[in-house]
Amino acid sequence: MSAIEDLVNELSRLPTIGRKSALRLTYHLLKQPREQSERLARALTTLVERVHSCERCFNLTEDLLCALCRDPRRDDALICVVEEASDISAIERYAEYRGVYHVLGGRLSPLDGVGPDDLTVDALVKRVSAGGIREVIVATNLKLEGEATALYLSKVLKPLGVRVTRIAHGLPVGGDLEYADEVTLARALEGRREL
Amino acid sequence: MSAIEDLVNELSRLPTIGRKSALRLTYHLLKQPREQSERLARALTTLVERVHSCERCFNLTEDLLCALCRDPRRDDALICVVEEASDISAIERYAEYRGVYHVLGGRLSPLDGVGPDDLTVDALVKRVSAGGIREVIVATNLKLEGEATALYLSKVLKPLGVRVTRIAHGLPVGGDLEYADEVTLARALEGRREL
Repeated sequence: MSAIEDLVNELSRLPTIGRKSALRLTYHLLKQPREQSERLARALTTLVERVHSCERCFNLTEDLLCALCRDPRRDDALICVVEEASDISAIERYAEYRGVYHVLGGRLSPLDGVGPDDLTVDALVKRVSAGGIREVIVATNLKLEGEATALYLSKVLKPLGVRVTRIAHGLPVGGDLEYADEVTLARALEGRREL
Repeated sequence: MSAIEDLVNELSRLPTIGRKSALRLTYHLLKQPREQSERLARALTTLVERVHSCERCFNLTEDLLCALCRDPRRDDALICVVEEASDISAIERYAEYRGVYHVLGGRLSPLDGVGPDDLTVDALVKRVSAGGIREVIVATNLKLEGEATALYLSKVLKPLGVRVTRIAHGLPVGGDLEYADEVTLARALEGRREL
């Protein structure tokens, strides 16, 4: 029964979905009303066909430019650099940020063979060189590789005369001093501000 | 970005997939090589379009009759009745069963409004009435509703002159007496056999 096995194989390739879950999902798709499975199949096909990277910021979009780049109310002079397009939704959901974005497509990772050419660093440099940019906020993850990427970006962007900043380390809001790891705690102290 | 939201919505409807997993899966599908996501989309579309119930036993198939019903080496006079098509793969994988199957499509459940007409009971009765059936093994789940379904089936099938049997209750192989629940233990004793 190859159609079933095909789908089970393809589903098992997805992260967090093992062979048993893939089998269970497949049988569920066959058991539920046909229209519902058809809707899922269509949604998936549409996604694969229509969604691609925004020409300017590499966010995901169905158009030439993404909704954020097209929005005239956003501040074009402020760019927030993130690793993945999914980071944008997190920032948009929780933060009051009114600038635009730039999606790197990952982080520098020499051990995995990921260098600047594998990311959208060139496009970012061109964007900044074109002028009109006031500040670049580097919001790569606060881990070793994200930090290295931030350092690298500041090295290539600062000579272009733009302000390069890094999102703050510190304790999470509501976080408990007692449970903070020492590195976070040290960074939180370093980053202290006047009250 | 409606294509993304569409897929996230459709994926969240699946069992064991919440909104956050759906989002993560969607981004994964957009990040992985396009061909791989296309393969998944195609596999899903093919499944929905091609797979349906076997005319005879209601197993899933892409043909008129399923592979098991078409196999001349299977014993057509022995029918194993299961609740779902997925139960067939479990039996085929682990048991040395050489007969054929009949998929009920569920179990009797008056509380959920599932009666004999919602299952493939009529088709089973017709199959048995047509003759040539030696034995019907009822392999519905060993829970309350599966038991009630088994009793019901034996009531409608026995008058047709066919032998109706039930799969055995008992301790799982490798099971520990100490950890068995009392009902299973009672059934295991009742079902004891000569050595």
